[in-house]
Amino acid sequence: MQSFNPPVRTLMGPGPSDIHPRVLSALARPTIGHLDPEFIRMMDETKELLKYAFQTTNELTMPVSAPGSAGMETCFVNLVEPGDKVIVCINGVFGNRMKENIERFGGEAIVVADDWGTAVTPEKVEAACQANPDAKIVAFVHAETSTGACSDVAAICQIAQKHDCLTIVDAVTSLGGIELKVDEWGVDAIYSGTQKCLSCVPGLSPISFNEKALEKVKNRSSKVPSWFLDLNLVLGYWGGGAKRAYHHTAPVNALYGLHESLLMLKEEGIENAWKRHADMHQQLKTGLEKMGIKFVVDEASRLPQLNSVWIPQGVDDAKIRSTLLNEYNLEIGAGLGDFAGKVWRIGLMGDTARKEKVLFCLAALNEVLPN
Amino acid sequence: MQSFNPPVRTLMGPGPSDIHPRVLSALARPTIGHLDPEFIRMMDETKELLKYAFQTTNELTMPVSAPGSAGMETCFVNLVEPGDKVIVCINGVFGNRMKENIERFGGEAIVVADDWGTAVTPEKVEAACQANPDAKIVAFVHAETSTGACSDVAAICQIAQKHDCLTIVDAVTSLGGIELKVDEWGVDAIYSGTQKCLSCVPGLSPISFNEKALEKVKNRSSKVPSWFLDLNLVLGYWGGGAKRAYHHTAPVNALYGLHESLLMLKEEGIENAWKRHADMHQQLKTGLEKMGIKFVVDEASRLPQLNSVWIPQGVDDAKIRSTLLNEYNLEIGAGLGDFAGKVWRIGLMGDTARKEKVLFCLAALNEVLPN
Repeated sequence: MQSFNPPVRTLMGPGPSDIHPRVLSALARPTIGHLDPEFIRMMDETKELLKYAFQTTNELTMPVSAPGSAGMETCFVNLVEPGDKVIVCINGVFGNRMKENIERFGGEAIVVADDWGTAVTPEKVEAACQANPDAKIVAFVHAETSTGACSDVAAICQIAQKHDCLTIVDAVTSLGGIELKVDEWGVDAIYSGTQKCLSCVPGLSPISFNEKALEKVKNRSSKVPSWFLDLNLVLGYWGGGAKRAYHHTAPVNALYGLHESLLMLKEEGIENAWKRHADMHQQLKTGLEKMGIKFVVDEASRLPQLNSVWIPQGVDDAKIRSTLLNEYNLEIGAGLGDFAGKVWRIGLMGDTARKEKVLFCLAALNEVLPN
Repeated sequence: MQSFNPPVRTLMGPGPSDIHPRVLSALARPTIGHLDPEFIRMMDETKELLKYAFQTTNELTMPVSAPGSAGMETCFVNLVEPGDKVIVCINGVFGNRMKENIERFGGEAIVVADDWGTAVTPEKVEAACQANPDAKIVAFVHAETSTGACSDVAAICQIAQKHDCLTIVDAVTSLGGIELKVDEWGVDAIYSGTQKCLSCVPGLSPISFNEKALEKVKNRSSKVPSWFLDLNLVLGYWGGGAKRAYHHTAPVNALYGLHESLLMLKEEGIENAWKRHADMHQQLKTGLEKMGIKFVVDEASRLPQLNSVWIPQGVDDAKIRSTLLNEYNLEIGAGLGDFAGKVWRIGLMGDTARKEKVLFCLAALNEVLPN
């Protein structure tokens, strides 16, 4: 067995996205202790940078020491108590996963269903809230990674608020790629991942809870059924102040990477990052449409960073993707769940949303697709 | 705000330990997709290397995508069902944390208590098993990171087996540093961390389950109260075969680092690594005793890789540690829990167990301690 030297790929799937050399080299900096004052200073900066990315002033804004799935679980395991009724909007794989989370922690899931490839319908959420006045939480996905559909966070949060429900929002694929304003839109709890539009390596999950959500965590009638993800404990470590209580050993070098990628987002300016994703999407769209390739999602709710397109008729899905991977070192995403074998998902996330990569992808597709 | 450039420290605390440049540079290799065939090949190699480190043939041997605390939780959340009686041995912080895990998942903890700084007494475990014939699991820590005491895994597993109990063993600080033979000793489920004697960055938790433990997971009467850590789901991703079901996005670059550190362990030979830790401990011990510094743990159950020593009388704990950190870039560990302010924990783990580091540590202590 030998050292693993990965091939150099262009990552245009649903994540991980391409990593900037600045972030890769940050990962290799010397490890220091997780209670070292210098490390704590870096943690504090990371929290500040994450607040900027989420557009929030929430004190509880931090990266969970595990991938996005653990960020999802952090929200549900802390906020759902046994017997709680939770309205959950399902329009793809990740809405469904929210439902599984709710049920694992003893909640009752009230499903608001929308077709794959469409946004969550706010009117249906309103109806579900009216029909379930005892519901405590509304949970939904901002950017459905499985379909490429974008839902209206502000509208759904407003409905939830009116009905006195907390909101849990999945922003795994949206953070850093499209407009997302946690405070202005009234989001109560939100989670994301580092390997999408933040263009950092996978393995961390940024979350943010406002005071209302935190109050619920602090006033639970039962203990959180997780030790690792219990925010009452985690906050002793990640909370404010120089004195940190040991909870777990933070993934030191992964956090170096996140710090660097967030710093790059700050340097670019978040509005510029949003615009870059939108512009690159336009460029990709123009090229794909020239090839006769059609989008799954209507223009109005289409995500720029996750482009779901129908696989042209008569084309061998697996063969094309493996040709792209093996001969072009280009990864595009397969369809997931209901969309397996039917769609491709072309990601333009973070550092992948660059003109040279869009043009390369279009040229490669042109070569491998039958005319 | 600027890029974070950490100081270069010598890490002689309870972990993280010093990282070899080969491991650091592996972290910075280009990220590829977590479903890329090349990545899957690397995952398979990592599993093989971990089997070597654990001295096991268990098929279910893999790194959990989160720090050691999550490996602990993986064992307890999968194996403890509501109402299960679990015998838990407490002789330091981490035995106590096991108890908290048991209770979070609805188990009943039967405590076998031993003094801090001593090993778990097998006779007490035998008595607890006899007094609780309905107990299902015996859980204990191999190498107590909070005290530096080593317990007899083989003896305790034998007792558990006789009483038809599964065993859960915490090997966070032992894996790679001292003799550990999962199959020969009859361990059923075990977890570790990457940042101790494997000398990799923190953030992953190697685990291993034998068939008997896996059977219990597969035949639970209730669902695992975690989605992220449910081995029934995780195995669809990390299990055998080339076809992987998506579960979560693996921390790609962190796994590059683990692969490299395990490869280095294989190259050195695990018996040689154990001997190196023992030898370096002897060297440190000789030097410390010359200074009149006394060990907390009896020689018979003393861990070579985690040296708990009494802080000499009249010495200002915090001042000495911060002088070492600020003027020597040397981190040694503070006491934890009952031992806070009373002991130092000097780690000789993985790449820290080197002659140059031991001698440096002794020389620095000589300079900063009052004569």
